[in-house]
Amino acid sequence: MLALTVSYDGRQFAGSQRQGQQRTVQLVLEQALSKLLGSAESVVFAGRTDAGVHAAGQVVSTVDVRQDFETSQMQRALNALLPDDVAVVDLRRREATFHARYDAIWREYRYRFWSGVRQPLAAGLVAQRDQRLRLGPMATAAKMLIGQNDLASFAGGGEGVPWSERQRFPRGTVRTVLACEVYRRDPWWGPVDEGGELIEIRIVADGFLPRMVRTIAGCLLEIGRGDREPIWIRELVAARDRRLAGTTAPAHGLILWRVGYPGDTLEANLDSGLHAESPAH
Amino acid sequence: MLALTVSYDGRQFAGSQRQGQQRTVQLVLEQALSKLLGSAESVVFAGRTDAGVHAAGQVVSTVDVRQDFETSQMQRALNALLPDDVAVVDLRRREATFHARYDAIWREYRYRFWSGVRQPLAAGLVAQRDQRLRLGPMATAAKMLIGQNDLASFAGGGEGVPWSERQRFPRGTVRTVLACEVYRRDPWWGPVDEGGELIEIRIVADGFLPRMVRTIAGCLLEIGRGDREPIWIRELVAARDRRLAGTTAPAHGLILWRVGYPGDTLEANLDSGLHAESPAH
Repeated sequence: MLALTVSYDGRQFAGSQRQGQQRTVQLVLEQALSKLLGSAESVVFAGRTDAGVHAAGQVVSTVDVRQDFETSQMQRALNALLPDDVAVVDLRRREATFHARYDAIWREYRYRFWSGVRQPLAAGLVAQRDQRLRLGPMATAAKMLIGQNDLASFAGGGEGVPWSERQRFPRGTVRTVLACEVYRRDPWWGPVDEGGELIEIRIVADGFLPRMVRTIAGCLLEIGRGDREPIWIRELVAARDRRLAGTTAPAHGLILWRVGYPGDTLEANLDSGLHAESPAH
Repeated sequence: MLALTVSYDGRQFAGSQRQGQQRTVQLVLEQALSKLLGSAESVVFAGRTDAGVHAAGQVVSTVDVRQDFETSQMQRALNALLPDDVAVVDLRRREATFHARYDAIWREYRYRFWSGVRQPLAAGLVAQRDQRLRLGPMATAAKMLIGQNDLASFAGGGEGVPWSERQRFPRGTVRTVLACEVYRRDPWWGPVDEGGELIEIRIVADGFLPRMVRTIAGCLLEIGRGDREPIWIRELVAARDRRLAGTTAPAHGLILWRVGYPGDTLEANLDSGLHAESPAH
């Protein structure tokens, strides 16, 4: 099998998974694969991302139909065929049984939120709102999600599907969160002192429910605004009821960062290395 | 006078300065100021940026015609009137004689270059080419530009104007470069290990000639590729002939970062704090 690491800007995509002829990442990728290899077979994505959600390291597996091609050549040829908002950032051969979704042992997401004056150079890539957040309570709340829990409270339905009719979860709603942290980062689009704060939520789990990161981000934002206390997260976990959780945070703040397979090393916590404490204001 | 710090994504602008009814930053800003204040008088930009060039901290001065308005209210109102790709990130009152261009004592630019596989999440915000660069020689060459020098070799003409007919420089071509450094940064759009390197050129000077940063960036890239040795920069300075310098680097890698006025502190060198040395490859 071939394993492709794919990055995309989600803004112009109707999500990752094929939906007829809508412009999805899968459609665009299958078109490029077909053109290059003559066929696109068993194209599997490690994680499903919604419309507007970005990816740095989505992993896609597909059948290695042209074993005479060098991987570096294939990668270059695919990138020449793909549009500007999607690229294959890594391409390698893996064992014949490799399956991008079933073999993944963890997935890492990042959610970015700018609290401050609107920043044009971060538009569409970072959720923004001119509202100060308390970083400490957000970080405290985030830690409460680590471990194995029933996360039904954070499972959104599909687009336009009312909560009461939302899809069943064949694997249940218990997931193991390996890392969940909130920290401040330096903005990359301008000087640090420009009247705001870039907050990143990092969450790694063995699997994710639909809209889970955006629902968690929405809850952490309510805590950051001071509308809720950190302990609310524990109450939500216990309640197993999505109706009690916060608003789903906007899609464009979310990035599927990395997918882990056996042998991959999970990055250590970042909150100590970066700015874990909010400056006084 | 009012001093506005303005950030913009340059992609959809035909540059900063007004050119009739073309979509320039000045036109869009003057329209918002007129709507809010009833007039837009003496709108002066600290630095002229070409089509496609971004700004984090462009400074704009204009007459304070509504002294009854609070600055925070004015800023919010302007940001509500401005399109998504431009925003006023700071707004304050300054003395009646304040002039954004004449009073500036230094301007800081950053040029960003990704050497590696195409990254969709950095498209339009970072210049990209899949070509390894030698960071050490680039950093050595950059240091040679520090100080007062005749920089005629790095002065580009206007768009479409042949070099021989390019505009005269009323203030001459001698400028003082206060900082010029090249260092590696961590990419912000994905994991660090994803097959490439983000290189930032930081240059601070008392003034800049047309296309100066992009011409210097083009020369440093030639040195990074190994086509030239660092000493070439010294030869170019001595020659005072634009025809000898490298290709102008693409506009979208450039950001006008900050403008300094009396009392402002210039940030210390960044190459020691970040990754000054290239990893082995």
